[in-house]
Amino acid sequence: MLKINATRLLANLESLAQIGGTPIGGVSRPAFSEADVAGRAWFKIRVEEAGLAFQIDGAGNLSAILPSTNPLAPTLLFGSHLDSVPNGGRFDGSLGVLCALEALQTIQEAKLALPCHLEAISFTDEEGAALGTFGSRAFVGDLDLQDLQLGRLTPQQLDAGLQRLGLTRTGFLSAQRPADTLAGFIEVHIEQGTRLEKAGVDIGVVTAIVGIRSFWLRFIGQAAHAGTMPMSQRADALWGAAEFIRQAREMVAASFSPGVMNCGRIQVSPGSFNIVPGEARLALEFRHSTVARLDEMEAALLDLAAKTAGALGLQCEAEPLARSSPAQMDGRMMQVVEKTAGQLGLSHIRLPSLAGHDARSLSRITPTALIFTPSVAGISHNPRELTHDEDVINGANVLLHAILALAAGQA
Amino acid sequence: MLKINATRLLANLESLAQIGGTPIGGVSRPAFSEADVAGRAWFKIRVEEAGLAFQIDGAGNLSAILPSTNPLAPTLLFGSHLDSVPNGGRFDGSLGVLCALEALQTIQEAKLALPCHLEAISFTDEEGAALGTFGSRAFVGDLDLQDLQLGRLTPQQLDAGLQRLGLTRTGFLSAQRPADTLAGFIEVHIEQGTRLEKAGVDIGVVTAIVGIRSFWLRFIGQAAHAGTMPMSQRADALWGAAEFIRQAREMVAASFSPGVMNCGRIQVSPGSFNIVPGEARLALEFRHSTVARLDEMEAALLDLAAKTAGALGLQCEAEPLARSSPAQMDGRMMQVVEKTAGQLGLSHIRLPSLAGHDARSLSRITPTALIFTPSVAGISHNPRELTHDEDVINGANVLLHAILALAAGQA
Repeated sequence: MLKINATRLLANLESLAQIGGTPIGGVSRPAFSEADVAGRAWFKIRVEEAGLAFQIDGAGNLSAILPSTNPLAPTLLFGSHLDSVPNGGRFDGSLGVLCALEALQTIQEAKLALPCHLEAISFTDEEGAALGTFGSRAFVGDLDLQDLQLGRLTPQQLDAGLQRLGLTRTGFLSAQRPADTLAGFIEVHIEQGTRLEKAGVDIGVVTAIVGIRSFWLRFIGQAAHAGTMPMSQRADALWGAAEFIRQAREMVAASFSPGVMNCGRIQVSPGSFNIVPGEARLALEFRHSTVARLDEMEAALLDLAAKTAGALGLQCEAEPLARSSPAQMDGRMMQVVEKTAGQLGLSHIRLPSLAGHDARSLSRITPTALIFTPSVAGISHNPRELTHDEDVINGANVLLHAILALAAGQA
Repeated sequence: MLKINATRLLANLESLAQIGGTPIGGVSRPAFSEADVAGRAWFKIRVEEAGLAFQIDGAGNLSAILPSTNPLAPTLLFGSHLDSVPNGGRFDGSLGVLCALEALQTIQEAKLALPCHLEAISFTDEEGAALGTFGSRAFVGDLDLQDLQLGRLTPQQLDAGLQRLGLTRTGFLSAQRPADTLAGFIEVHIEQGTRLEKAGVDIGVVTAIVGIRSFWLRFIGQAAHAGTMPMSQRADALWGAAEFIRQAREMVAASFSPGVMNCGRIQVSPGSFNIVPGEARLALEFRHSTVARLDEMEAALLDLAAKTAGALGLQCEAEPLARSSPAQMDGRMMQVVEKTAGQLGLSHIRLPSLAGHDARSLSRITPTALIFTPSVAGISHNPRELTHDEDVINGANVLLHAILALAAGQA
């Protein structure tokens, strides 16, 4: 049975991790940074050294291409992203790109004639230095010029960043790929959670990528003197927010698992030691893998906010913010991945992804699979992020044989 | 029985409330502001029109003086402050100054020969535009040049403010009054709470002014991905702060009343919708009327913080901040006030003051009494602050007869 070159794959991982490497073994390589420029140059050299065709599109997405003998054949696409969060780990994104390149090189070296073009791709700015999943959204045509203005960079910073990568502000529009040229997309990614590790399982087959909804909850009470206003007569907005946090986490854990919620920001006003808070603004985010469950969570959480506020004599207003829909992975491709893993003697389970990925974008236009490898202790977006060598190799081999099986299906 | 001139007192209150007056009947007259300058000028004119001696000391404290025929007699002092918080009410401070002026005028008009000098005083910046109880601290010698640097104004702002009042940066040192020249101090003030109103009582006789202690509580967990980190494995610092807030308010209400606590500020980091809070910094303030009870509250609250943190897998660090000691009012003066109120047919109760006042400063060097009048709904530091005319008049008459009784005791 064909296997990837484990030594080469691990060497590539180690070599790439030096670019933007941090003292304790992590990686800081945000999109558009000098480290990103260097990482992209490194990838181009690897592709060309392998004798594969290198391609860059108008969104800066980088590809290594192994063409089919049939020029009219569709393209089977696989990959992830080379950028990292600031002070992140060496596996998030990079693992998927290097597994893709390794699978492509292995197929090339095996001199297999395939009925579809194979393309290993690295999407630009998945982590959102400017705009999250920038490259994959441009690739599927889910990005317009106005979206660019919603990013985290000022126009000047964005222009400078694009220029550093040899891109222009409108160039990404040309990156859109017609859906009918694609045979599917496969992404290998670290789980960034603990479910595989806890279950002692080698491979995760993702069923869906969660949808995310977020709200500002405003608990409104009455500011008052923190000495003279008796505690029994206060309408303390922070008391309401605190009560909501406690009850919401218990409710979500009890009734909505594996869905999750988070309160990651809070602002209190007037904001003085000696004034009872008149208002508390709480950031609420929650995730689940179906629209139906998201709707249920939203109703339950907003109802809880109103009830906890009311019980303490407060008002509560909920301001909806950005939301993303859940993305379902392709059923046939999931089966192919499971069969492949089984043939390689690897254990596997199905599970939803609780984080967004480029696979979310691709699933809008082509059958998509997302393969998880275990993360030690679930640590990610952190220099201590770790996936064991064996799991890296397993991920690449599953990808290799899923590609081969899917390509065979195109014949 | 001698009575104050109610018509004149209420007219003075109304007239003074126009200076820095706000559209809905409140007052915005922070110390060192143009409104403060105007309020002080108004007071000087009233004093001189009454034929009383006007005096200003190096801290800008303003006095109206009715001298004894015995130049060696001690001074019986009474008053409060003319400054307000921004967008505050018309009674806080002003009531005490105008009751003092009214009592003095009444005594003057009655041509009573008294065995002590009488002095009605307005202390500078009680509310802390620059430094809380600035004038009364200078008066009792509890302020040095370094303290000035701890205020809320920049050196330039402070110099400009002092200049506006005709003061210099070092002048306040000359405001210190030798304790042996004083026979005592009486302050009339609105309660700013609801205890008198709830009890249906006319006059509050303050037993002590609470001590205040404050801490930053740092709940320390582990920042994590708000999607992929299972809720059961999070060390969410905000969960700890929220749990502490809930349990602390219940504990203080159940075990430390009339002591109170407040959490008036909170800061969460990293502070992002999609990141589990790694740290939450919570402002804790609590108040009680004796050192023993403050010590018990401190131990119980810090113990609770450690326990709630520990139960959620968090650390907790407590950073002590500024503290003020409780100030006991003088027992004999409390009895004089009670006897006076009784003679006037007014009901009275003893109660601690949960806010600081100039009386706290004065109690350091001279026997001090603090007389509360009822506040409608406890509202204060707010344009809707209200004390009914009848209660204003009662407060002034109790002050008048307390002065007469105490002066008689000096004979």
